[in-house]
Amino acid sequence: MKMIEGGVCAPYGFKAYGMHCGVKSNNPDKKDVAVIASEIECTAAAMFTKNVVQAAPIHVTREHLKDGRARAILVNSGNANACAPHGERYAQECCRALAELMQIPETEIVVASTGVIGQTLPKQVIIDNLPTIVANLNDRGSEDAALAIMTTDTVKKEFAVEFTLSGQRVRIGGIAKGSGMIHPNMGTMLAFLTTDCDISSQMLSEALHEAVAVSFNRISVDGDTSTNDTCCILANGIARNLRIGSKGEDYRIFTKALTELCTRLARSMAKDGEGAKHLITCTVQGAASEEDAETVSKSVISSTLTKAAIFGCDANWGRILCAMGYSGVAFDPEQVNVAFASEAGVIDVCRQGRGLDFDEALAKKILTEPEVEILVSMGEGEGQCTCWGCDITYDYIKINGDYRT
Amino acid sequence: MKMIEGGVCAPYGFKAYGMHCGVKSNNPDKKDVAVIASEIECTAAAMFTKNVVQAAPIHVTREHLKDGRARAILVNSGNANACAPHGERYAQECCRALAELMQIPETEIVVASTGVIGQTLPKQVIIDNLPTIVANLNDRGSEDAALAIMTTDTVKKEFAVEFTLSGQRVRIGGIAKGSGMIHPNMGTMLAFLTTDCDISSQMLSEALHEAVAVSFNRISVDGDTSTNDTCCILANGIARNLRIGSKGEDYRIFTKALTELCTRLARSMAKDGEGAKHLITCTVQGAASEEDAETVSKSVISSTLTKAAIFGCDANWGRILCAMGYSGVAFDPEQVNVAFASEAGVIDVCRQGRGLDFDEALAKKILTEPEVEILVSMGEGEGQCTCWGCDITYDYIKINGDYRT
Repeated sequence: MKMIEGGVCAPYGFKAYGMHCGVKSNNPDKKDVAVIASEIECTAAAMFTKNVVQAAPIHVTREHLKDGRARAILVNSGNANACAPHGERYAQECCRALAELMQIPETEIVVASTGVIGQTLPKQVIIDNLPTIVANLNDRGSEDAALAIMTTDTVKKEFAVEFTLSGQRVRIGGIAKGSGMIHPNMGTMLAFLTTDCDISSQMLSEALHEAVAVSFNRISVDGDTSTNDTCCILANGIARNLRIGSKGEDYRIFTKALTELCTRLARSMAKDGEGAKHLITCTVQGAASEEDAETVSKSVISSTLTKAAIFGCDANWGRILCAMGYSGVAFDPEQVNVAFASEAGVIDVCRQGRGLDFDEALAKKILTEPEVEILVSMGEGEGQCTCWGCDITYDYIKINGDYRT
Repeated sequence: MKMIEGGVCAPYGFKAYGMHCGVKSNNPDKKDVAVIASEIECTAAAMFTKNVVQAAPIHVTREHLKDGRARAILVNSGNANACAPHGERYAQECCRALAELMQIPETEIVVASTGVIGQTLPKQVIIDNLPTIVANLNDRGSEDAALAIMTTDTVKKEFAVEFTLSGQRVRIGGIAKGSGMIHPNMGTMLAFLTTDCDISSQMLSEALHEAVAVSFNRISVDGDTSTNDTCCILANGIARNLRIGSKGEDYRIFTKALTELCTRLARSMAKDGEGAKHLITCTVQGAASEEDAETVSKSVISSTLTKAAIFGCDANWGRILCAMGYSGVAFDPEQVNVAFASEAGVIDVCRQGRGLDFDEALAKKILTEPEVEILVSMGEGEGQCTCWGCDITYDYIKINGDYRT
């Protein structure tokens, strides 16, 4: 398996394009609508937010994907089409317009939105520009699409991997956006994945669930689970590998590559969390089970006080023990060891639940790096898990103090 | 029932004092140790943090209160005595020193600490100054004690109420401290309550649980449940009311007064949350049950994005629906109404799950007030609940980016 260029257009038979249509009416230089399309029909799978309040496009996409088939993805940023008048009807009208242009059934369209909640979707500016978008679909358009789904993101999230299945080269590509209202609760944010792998709808769905569980569902920016989270994958089968129809070796290879891709996207999402200055990686080892390790690790990366300490490059490990303690997992605090690590080194700060006399200057140096690791060992068993988050900064407050205007 | 002056010294027979002993070694002008003492032995009850990681003084106090009796409270700020070497032994040594000075058994001492986690308690500076503290105990010392338990608090929290039971005037007083690592999970922060009511240990404990459930357990500052949370009440019986030994009318009156006192302390704690500019009160009505109303209300006041919007005086009600949606409570979003209120007026922003065209200037004016209310109706039933929180600000990040130094 190797990382390759091209994002969602790296797999054969996929084209994409993104442009400014006017949804972000205040920012004419920002792209706000993207289409990703396959030359031929695909098997498809998706996961959605577990929030009770779900955006209109999620209802529409859920309906369209009932047969496990799709051919194109239509997505806008700048407006969430959630809790807004005529939400489903407008989402359907956009799908219908794209379907007519592409001459495919509208049920083959996956639709998604992201942006402000509660405002009416300006559907006409989208529909009016769809002919231009369709005319410009091309096999190097992934970057435009990645840019068009950004809201408060500062960098695009775009990766692709290539690997071999039954002697054939297979590719998976993906784009994603953060960067606020991000908290692991299945689904998570917007991520669109494509592959030229030949795989059944059932196996594709199972592989997606496996990959998302250990990637997107292990990040948190601010503890708020969005109303619009959608993660969707299209597989067009053009790679001509032996079709994956059961959980054999090929399924395992495919899922591993998909997981690697999703993890890269998830990490980049955490790193570009709103206002973030630090990517925080928390690895918990020695928990009684993997579930316990995940619960503890998520509690640490979600702790506002821990996030504030990392922002201040302050080795305040007491907050880490505190966050472990209220995670809901039972453990003996006197077995816990904590260390901080980064490119600048590693430092032990807590052994068996008690503080060590450590070199504060070295700790500061380690925590000043843009990517820092929190290493926790619990002494309870073999369970381990890594989760990713980011620090909370003045800029997070600034960005979110006045997001609508 | 009326509010009176005097804090923990308002009930007859209680004295208090607080002074700088040197635990806060960098701040010689800040008090850091307090003692609250009753002239005679008291019935006592306490509630503690549910964090798995519990500070040493909590273990000691739990042991001392097994018989439901106590006579004095010893508390320090500046050091949490949590995850620190010799924690229990040092807490016990402090208790022993105070017990000898007061000529009472050391098991009659309630001990508590608050401050940085993981550093060794400088017990000797406490022990060396206890003779001075005991010599200065006086019946107007509540304010000194309230000041001595503050960490990042900007104002002291001190209230007292007076009411009548079986023809006798009875008083309850209390002091408390915030202002970070505050999240409802039973216990919550430090709060010390005194009363001259004559009440059995069992009834005192039940009244405390009832009051805490609807006051301290309904606030959140940052979602982090501290390792040191303790809420304790001493009742010395000096008011000579007919002893409360069962859940009759007198128990009800006492519990109501205690609840009022705790609610005032809790509100003041939320209002003085670290860096806070706004007290946020969220009242949920029309939930299927009181439990549902409480879950939804807590989710709203704990949402980082909602807190950031209130900081920015931005009527971003979509984040409120979003926080309701991931609270875990099932409901129909299309029945939800949302309004904002403050001394500047009331404004409806969402009806039946859809945004209203509202006056943005009026909304801004309402949200600029220091105390703002979020009013939610769910249309599911009769359940209602009010919770209190605060906004998240640049100052919160500043305070917590470098707390230890």
